[in-house]
Order: sequence, then C-alpha cells, then structure tokens
Amino acid sequence: MSKHDGVSISVIKRLPRYYRFLGELKENGTVRISSKDLSAKMGFTASQIRQDLNCFGGFGQQGYGYNIESLYNEIGKILGVNSNRKAILIGAGNLGKAIARHMSFESRGFNLIGIFDKNEALSGQMLRGIPIRHIDGLYDFCRDNSPTVAVLCIPSSAAEVFAPQLVELGIKGFWNFSHYDISAHYPNVAVENVHLSDSLMTLSYHVSQLD
Amino acid sequence: MSKHDGVSISVIKRLPRYYRFLGELKENGTVRISSKDLSAKMGFTASQIRQDLNCFGGFGQQGYGYNIESLYNEIGKILGVNSNRKAILIGAGNLGKAIARHMSFESRGFNLIGIFDKNEALSGQMLRGIPIRHIDGLYDFCRDNSPTVAVLCIPSSAAEVFAPQLVELGIKGFWNFSHYDISAHYPNVAVENVHLSDSLMTLSYHVSQLD
Repeated sequence: MSKHDGVSISVIKRLPRYYRFLGELKENGTVRISSKDLSAKMGFTASQIRQDLNCFGGFGQQGYGYNIESLYNEIGKILGVNSNRKAILIGAGNLGKAIARHMSFESRGFNLIGIFDKNEALSGQMLRGIPIRHIDGLYDFCRDNSPTVAVLCIPSSAAEVFAPQLVELGIKGFWNFSHYDISAHYPNVAVENVHLSDSLMTLSYHVSQLD
Repeated sequence: MSKHDGVSISVIKRLPRYYRFLGELKENGTVRISSKDLSAKMGFTASQIRQDLNCFGGFGQQGYGYNIESLYNEIGKILGVNSNRKAILIGAGNLGKAIARHMSFESRGFNLIGIFDKNEALSGQMLRGIPIRHIDGLYDFCRDNSPTVAVLCIPSSAAEVFAPQLVELGIKGFWNFSHYDISAHYPNVAVENVHLSDSLMTLSYHVSQLD
C-alpha cells in the first residue's frame, strides 16, 4: 500500500465522495468524464478536482478527461476498500444493531467477524448472520481471530474501559460512535469519530440562524 | 436569536464539544474553570479556546476563568438547544429506528413529533412513543403540525423525491443521512449531513496508512 503522508485531511475526506460518484457513473456505463463534467455533478470546481486528483498522481489525460473505471479503481485502492480487514463491533444496542444491519462493510474494506455486548440476554441472537457474543469472550475471540478494527457503539464510559484493552489486543483502527476521545490517549491508532449528537446540535445552530 | 454570521464553520463545529464538556463539568459540580484547565480536558490549546469563545463575546474574566454554568447556558443558547423545534423522521428502517430510539432530540433543541415510512407493514408500530405513519400521510401531517426540521433516513433516490416536497411543506432544516446533496438544490435550507459510508471509507484509508 502506497503512503500519502503529504496529502491534507480535507483531500482525504473528499475521496469517498469521488469514489461514490465515480461508482454511480460506472454503474450507468459512462466511460470517460472531464473534470468540468465531474465538477458539475459533484459541486466541486473543476480546478479543485484536478488539484485533488493530482495529489495522487493524476489519472487524467489533458483533453481526454478521466477514465472512470481506472480512476474508480485507483481511488478504491487508495481508500483500501479491497483490504478486507477483520472488524468487530462492540455494543449491540439500537445504534450498534442498526450499524451492523445497515452498513455495507464489505464494499468499504471491512469484514465484520464479531459482535459483542455486555447484555447476556442478547447472547446468541444473530445480526447479519453473526451471533452476538458476551463481552467476556472478547479477549479469547481477538486472540483467536486477530481483528484489527473495532466499531464502538457504546457510551463513553464503556469506551474508556474497552479502548485500552482493544489496543492491547491488536486493534489499530476505531470507528468510534462514543464521545470518548481515543486519539488523545492512543495517538498511533487510526480513529474516525461519528458524533451524532454534535451533528444534531450543529443543525440546531444552523436552523437558528435562519429564524 | 442573535446571529453569528461572521463566525467560521470550524468554530461552530467545535461548539457542541464545548457544550458537552461543560455539561459534564456542571454535572460534577465544578463552578469555574480556566482556559488552561479546559484545554487540558478537551485537547484544544488554551489560546484556541480563548479565541473560539471570544467569537461569541467572551464569557471569561481575566484571571478568574470561565463560570461553567453561565458559559454552558450561553453556548446552549447559541446552539439553540432550547428551541424545541418540531421535527419529523422519514424512513423507519434499521437506521431510522436506531436514530429515533437512540438520540436525545429534546436536549438538542428538537421535538420529534412524527415518523414516516413507505412500508405499510410498519404503520401503527410505536417508536419512542410515536406511531409510525405511512408516507402518504406526510402532506396532511405537515399542514396540520408545521414541523420545521426533517431527519432523512432514506436512500438518495427517495431523498431526491421527498426533499422538494418537504421544502415546499415548510421544512427548513435537514438532518440528512442520505447521499442526496440537498444543499446543492436548496441553498437556503440548513443541512447537516451524516455520511456513514464515507466515514467508514475514511477509516479504511487511515488504517491503510498504518500498514
């Protein structure tokens, strides 16, 4: 896997969006697209698109536009969507269940292999074909299966307890729905936070500004 | 509601985080805090905290730090968390159900008053004390109840159909879990996007960089 250390986080954050749009174009049978047409579709400027894609070595050919399939595949490689990393999900409450059922983990680079909850009443229930296990089995499961990514659908107090154990057990990436600040404590793991209540408050702010 | 047009989006995005941390301090009975101590807790620099809060007129007193309760209340006002805006949720699939059950809408400024789905089999089922209604009743419900915010837990193809209708029916803020780009079509409504699959791909990228 090539490294892209010099690429800014804002470019990285736009890559999934490119990947989605290119995927749709590919599905529709489009073969080539100019940065101008791609910009009309995506709402970025053509110059921004050229700049963004240049960060990864281009892919375009002056006057011919981009070949959609190869650009799609290249961005997919950069994003690591074919990595098939073993992932576990901790917390099978409302949110955890929805994430397990709703997300297309496989096409995003992950293979969800285990689901854990502290509630014994859930043990053995199936979620997308995976049995919910009691959290007490976490250590043995990780030792035997070596997952590298954890999805945390638990409150911060629980995340604070489990994050150190998970790092110890070899987890190096967290999809973190809790408010526990993993990066502050483990700067060397990858963390992507989804703070739903912060997002809802941000919406509240923006709607207030319209009054 | 006072307007804060000159405040950058990155400051706004940090406000919910301040609000959460100050809420915890308040719960714990802390009365005052210096920007230095707040910075140690939150992982921002003290100077950033002073700059951020100055955007809204300060609240601090040199040498005395911030009064937590009044700062909490002021940020809450800016965020509009006491606005009690009527909200509806469209799409009671896995994700919609989880969002309805999991989120504390009331403490974030919203009053969830209606839930809609196109699946007739769901009609009448209760979610957090609210009956799921068939989507055909959307027009009458909005006319009678005047919600101003919509939570979209539907695919983009459905969002593309319903966004125009909802704007027409008086919706001026969207919490958008779909990939449909509402802002591009309705620049005058407030939109907060939650793109879970983009977030998951961003994590995939960051984990790849560790290999």
